[in-house]
Amino acid sequence: MMVFLHGRFIPETEAAISIFDRSFMYGDGLFETIRVRGGKFFRWEPHFDRLNRGADFLSIRMPFTSPELARFAGELVAINGSTEAVLRIQMSRGPGVRGYSPVGADRPVLVMSLHPLPELPRTPAQSRLITSVLRVSAADPLLSFKTCSKLHHVLARAEAHRSGADDALLLNTSGELAEATGSNLFWITGGTPHTTPLASGALPGVTRAVLIELCSKSGTPVREKTGSVELLRRSEAVFLSLSSSGLVEVTELDRKPLMRSPVVKELYHDYLSTVMRETV
Amino acid sequence: MMVFLHGRFIPETEAAISIFDRSFMYGDGLFETIRVRGGKFFRWEPHFDRLNRGADFLSIRMPFTSPELARFAGELVAINGSTEAVLRIQMSRGPGVRGYSPVGADRPVLVMSLHPLPELPRTPAQSRLITSVLRVSAADPLLSFKTCSKLHHVLARAEAHRSGADDALLLNTSGELAEATGSNLFWITGGTPHTTPLASGALPGVTRAVLIELCSKSGTPVREKTGSVELLRRSEAVFLSLSSSGLVEVTELDRKPLMRSPVVKELYHDYLSTVMRETV
Repeated sequence: MMVFLHGRFIPETEAAISIFDRSFMYGDGLFETIRVRGGKFFRWEPHFDRLNRGADFLSIRMPFTSPELARFAGELVAINGSTEAVLRIQMSRGPGVRGYSPVGADRPVLVMSLHPLPELPRTPAQSRLITSVLRVSAADPLLSFKTCSKLHHVLARAEAHRSGADDALLLNTSGELAEATGSNLFWITGGTPHTTPLASGALPGVTRAVLIELCSKSGTPVREKTGSVELLRRSEAVFLSLSSSGLVEVTELDRKPLMRSPVVKELYHDYLSTVMRETV
Repeated sequence: MMVFLHGRFIPETEAAISIFDRSFMYGDGLFETIRVRGGKFFRWEPHFDRLNRGADFLSIRMPFTSPELARFAGELVAINGSTEAVLRIQMSRGPGVRGYSPVGADRPVLVMSLHPLPELPRTPAQSRLITSVLRVSAADPLLSFKTCSKLHHVLARAEAHRSGADDALLLNTSGELAEATGSNLFWITGGTPHTTPLASGALPGVTRAVLIELCSKSGTPVREKTGSVELLRRSEAVFLSLSSSGLVEVTELDRKPLMRSPVVKELYHDYLSTVMRETV
């Protein structure tokens, strides 16, 4: 597999990062993952935008414009012949000195790699969740970006695997629903789709925005709602949104089955159609 | 400068980390910094212990015993002739797959590097603090370790530099004093030294423990106290503890001078004597 590093295409085995890279030392970086279908990127712009806003917030100089990076990403897909994949973009502040201070670290590193992924299935994938003991802080401004300081998310995911689940639900420190480790949370009550507000500690997910768009078009707009785990138990359906799989149906929460609704499948079909249409 | 990587001593320019290293991708690792004086390590054991406890918590296999790692660290000091330095140890979960799940990443990477540092000065160094807008969550179990997901600390430090200060004071989400970005917080009121309890979101610092030990011996034991910024303003002195500099006097908080006490200098002298005695 070829990867993109320092403006060049090189074999992944030759791609190397300094031991003094700030993202290696302190998680001082950002990443994005974008679905590639038929060799095209689904919703490139909002992903790049979030990366760019994150770089601004972290004061890391973005080394490429969106069209420049998209062109390199396209070349990477072509070189690897990976038409069904996930593109991972990582930007680090680059090599720096020991200590938290980022002063002097001004050679950002941008890496892109492709990760094989099967085509989107005909029906939504399913996931069993557990509620993590780890909490996010709703006021944390970094939750707006995909930063490389994600150890909480890593440990919550490991916690899920240990208990035989697929993913972990993260609450905020007030006990309100925030998100799952790599996806946004949705549920349906009274026929209306709901999701957590960003203020509860949710990432402004690109697929979250797609689903909000689709629900709005179909006449059942998504409502943002602060909620607790109990709310999910009473819901007609619970699902997750994420760039790699689109929409994932949650079948179990903390080992107890959740209700399911045909609405989830319908919404997934709308999502599939959108992906197909935009990646022709 | 030679560094230690994968059990070998190599030039730092040849030391390289995979772009799929988990610490690079997600801050999935741990680090420690240890003062080297006269070629000896000051308080090796508690540093190794914290690293080891962190590895346990993260389920990363610790590849070396304490004596093994200390021997390698000693060789590194000898090879580089760096008798006054800071040793940085970093352990990453190693290369893994894309996504938060650590499953399959079972080749941990351990790096050691030396960073030149002047000898400890005769009187404590000084620092001007600002109160960061970023908060820590007191209940966060990861605050007990030096993890590689430290972007909050990086940004708080950058915030301090931007406003002309040296370091940032971190409060927890309840507005209580937690720590500074790379050090523990102490203050003196009524002649009694105080520090924040770990439950407020403070790292169990090795130098924090040394100062607690020294104060206890000198008959003025440190009291743990939950406090606010206002408390520091009314204190007779404020200081920080950290492995590289020992004890640092805080002269300003949010651009206003703080009171200062000769007790800080006396405590620093006790600290210096301890370092000298234990690194002969």
